[in-house]
Amino acid sequence: MPASIYLDHNATTPVATEVVEAMATALRNSFGNPSSSYALGREAAEQIATARDAVASLIGAPAQSLVFTGCATEANNLALLGVARACPPGKRHLVISAVEHPAVMAPARYLEAQGWRLTLVPVDETGQVSAEAVIDAVRPDTALVSIMLANNEVGTLQPVADIARHLANRDVLLHTDAAQAVGKIALDVEALGIDLLTIAGHKFQASKGVGALYVREGTPIRSVLFGAGHEKGLRPGTENVPAIIGLGVAANLAAQRLASNDTRLRDRRDQLHQRLGADIPDLRLNGHAEARLPNTLNVSFPSVSGQALLDVVRDTVMASVGSACHSGESTPSGVLGAMGLDTARALGAVRLSVGWDTTAKEIEAAAVALVQAWRHLADGR
Amino acid sequence: MPASIYLDHNATTPVATEVVEAMATALRNSFGNPSSSYALGREAAEQIATARDAVASLIGAPAQSLVFTGCATEANNLALLGVARACPPGKRHLVISAVEHPAVMAPARYLEAQGWRLTLVPVDETGQVSAEAVIDAVRPDTALVSIMLANNEVGTLQPVADIARHLANRDVLLHTDAAQAVGKIALDVEALGIDLLTIAGHKFQASKGVGALYVREGTPIRSVLFGAGHEKGLRPGTENVPAIIGLGVAANLAAQRLASNDTRLRDRRDQLHQRLGADIPDLRLNGHAEARLPNTLNVSFPSVSGQALLDVVRDTVMASVGSACHSGESTPSGVLGAMGLDTARALGAVRLSVGWDTTAKEIEAAAVALVQAWRHLADGR
Repeated sequence: MPASIYLDHNATTPVATEVVEAMATALRNSFGNPSSSYALGREAAEQIATARDAVASLIGAPAQSLVFTGCATEANNLALLGVARACPPGKRHLVISAVEHPAVMAPARYLEAQGWRLTLVPVDETGQVSAEAVIDAVRPDTALVSIMLANNEVGTLQPVADIARHLANRDVLLHTDAAQAVGKIALDVEALGIDLLTIAGHKFQASKGVGALYVREGTPIRSVLFGAGHEKGLRPGTENVPAIIGLGVAANLAAQRLASNDTRLRDRRDQLHQRLGADIPDLRLNGHAEARLPNTLNVSFPSVSGQALLDVVRDTVMASVGSACHSGESTPSGVLGAMGLDTARALGAVRLSVGWDTTAKEIEAAAVALVQAWRHLADGR
Repeated sequence: MPASIYLDHNATTPVATEVVEAMATALRNSFGNPSSSYALGREAAEQIATARDAVASLIGAPAQSLVFTGCATEANNLALLGVARACPPGKRHLVISAVEHPAVMAPARYLEAQGWRLTLVPVDETGQVSAEAVIDAVRPDTALVSIMLANNEVGTLQPVADIARHLANRDVLLHTDAAQAVGKIALDVEALGIDLLTIAGHKFQASKGVGALYVREGTPIRSVLFGAGHEKGLRPGTENVPAIIGLGVAANLAAQRLASNDTRLRDRRDQLHQRLGADIPDLRLNGHAEARLPNTLNVSFPSVSGQALLDVVRDTVMASVGSACHSGESTPSGVLGAMGLDTARALGAVRLSVGWDTTAKEIEAAAVALVQAWRHLADGR
């Protein structure tokens, strides 16, 4: 690999050195089955408990409220389909935003195909739902509201705590897909007031292959996969011990960083925005100017295609035009469409997402490369 | 850890050094999202393709027929529930053996609760179904037969190839949970004649957190989790790149070992059986004497409880009385019950499962410890 600059931390993050080391040690030494009753097994179970404490602590939750899963997609599926399995027959309506990730949108569509009613709440031009519109969509038969905490493409934060306050005395559960938020912003399940929250390991320097679902005690939910009774019966299958241990280490790292240096991501992001804006006057920010993930800069470059721009810089800057799941597609992103962006602006969009390790020097070099590529393409039209 | 002897390879296996190294390297260097279009992402996708080739080769399958999952339990769920989702309305009957792992039994019971008919085919005193009994259970409305290749507790091999031959011209799919067989015996999906086969990484020296489902081309199946279109739409969620890479390395290792030294496991197992039998004349073998996994020795110690015996030796020998999922339970195993063993014999059972790294010296030391503990307990009654 050349010394390419990684600005795609919303797609996935480098695994922290501390996490790699903890996982390598676990792979070598902690291979016991956590269900086994001898010391090797019990030690693996204890390491899982330690990780559960760390991850729970990052979101202000009691440890026993966390269910480890194989990925955030599985956690979202467990939230939607698991609640659907557990709720009474009169509750067959679901409310989600129009900009949810496919890992929420697709299970919601599946439930719709099974006879559920589904309401998609629209977003404004910043990608945000209004809490009022979400509450207005709630009906007596609404079982669950699922609104992401932060959008993966534009970083816009949703008013989840407001929604929770309005739902407080209603018989409706609230889930938030926090895959993009955990580790980037401080958050607390009590302050948010949510019942279910999805965590993605590989979005904050843990490994791929592990996620978690916070389930508030007492929330009616049933498993969607079936087997032996792991994870309180909510997620069968031998636990992914090394990745769970790594998730705990990543949670501790994230907590330290958020506490000690909470402006770091924002500073890098805004440096990049300022540098690009200085040379490209018609650059347009997509997403909310303030209520936004501190690491996410989604901008539309005028008169060019975002994918063409990234193709020019691909040996220097790694970024994407939308979610990684849709990389290489030339149709504009559904999120930008839901925000009402015209096609030219949507096709000119590039998502630049910085990480804790991103340096000011990298930002400067990336800006130079992006501006140069944009000039080349815009002039050559 | 003291120098304890690990004889619980059916619960989980040590991760091979080669796998640890490949995974550590991947965690450090191959963190790209395989869906990303720049080099870092494409390289991760290529490494997954290499692993897919290796795992497919181990079972004689085309690479594109493998779906990577988060564990074997998930693969079994995908097989049963995914086929159920895809089959026509007139097909609502399922045939499984009475000794399936909970990862097959539980989704089968779930389908039964959804209105499916379920037939449990009994096993004989060796833990084996007869192919004839399975075929006799098949009806015009049978969608799927799921019979494990090797039992996890007693190691008995099932006549899956025979069953497949009888089903060849009938409109019925055949799945086998090969979690315990892959890497321990040579197998080939064409010779077996099966449509779906489950693989568990951590049962053959790969990491926990990864499994796979072989799906014969053309098999009607739909996903059971919903999200972006990973793994041909059958398993959404960002791929667990490091664990999949490790699974490929483990598959290559297993293929080499099976080809070069296929009697190694059997020799160690039989050495242990001979040593125990020499000092404990009434020791009883549970499972099939010949049609059995080469690494698995399930024996009933006379006049003692298997769990009490293991508690005495726990600092010397790590083994279990049944599947790890049920460790610590004092009720006799359902598998041994289905085989018709009386309660005393079932409660005296211990599963001793050797691995590729198990040495003759370890077998000798384990036998000494087990015999000594048995004498201590039997005399003290």
